[in-house]
Amino acid sequence: MRSVIRGPSGEKVGNALDVPADPAYTSNGIPIPGMTIRWLVRGEDGAPTYAMRLFESAPGAEVEVHAHPWEHEIFVFRGSMTATVGSSSYELEEGDFIFIPPDVAHGFRAGSRGATFICTIPLRPTAQR
Amino acid sequence: MRSVIRGPSGEKVGNALDVPADPAYTSNGIPIPGMTIRWLVRGEDGAPTYAMRLFESAPGAEVEVHAHPWEHEIFVFRGSMTATVGSSSYELEEGDFIFIPPDVAHGFRAGSRGATFICTIPLRPTAQR
Repeated sequence: MRSVIRGPSGEKVGNALDVPADPAYTSNGIPIPGMTIRWLVRGEDGAPTYAMRLFESAPGAEVEVHAHPWEHEIFVFRGSMTATVGSSSYELEEGDFIFIPPDVAHGFRAGSRGATFICTIPLRPTAQR
Repeated sequence: MRSVIRGPSGEKVGNALDVPADPAYTSNGIPIPGMTIRWLVRGEDGAPTYAMRLFESAPGAEVEVHAHPWEHEIFVFRGSMTATVGSSSYELEEGDFIFIPPDVAHGFRAGSRGATFICTIPLRPTAQR
């Protein structure tokens, strides 16, 4: 499959690497050197609930620790990365996943081979207030 | 990483293949030969909005065409499969994704090497009624 298709029933289908890569930003709005984001599925595509993005990180690229009132569900497709969650850190490799609850501080640093990972987020805050 | 961990901030982390594999069922409640489901992240884990599952399919294993009032966002991790969506069908390989809107008929058939794919679903119906 070589292009991203919108089908007659509203489906969207394609190769993740054929979705345009945008710069990835920190929670302060600063571009992250060596990291891109591809929005595979988002609200504009008709997704009602959550979005699926593909991040690609060069070796050592880092998302600083931050928090927000919504969760992440992440799956590592290629490479490796260190995930910091609250006071813990985890080494993740291909086929690993992580759930980060709302409002929990978290950050990432790609390993020596870089990292490519799926990161999903809800379309609106979900924390119980 | 060799075991699935629940961390002190509510995070859940591990290798997808270390999550127990359950039989996968059709929409009629019949086990699907050659297909398993691993619930990586679900409501019981504290996920507020949507669940992430890993399906593993033997070559030719098939999910019959069905529909339900919620969407899927799918990412193919290994192998290949044919996705039928409404009146269209698509050949998916490693790194391909597909968004299937609520209420759209869809089915899957694993290719000759089988298929391993992430399939996410919201925790409750999302169709606009």
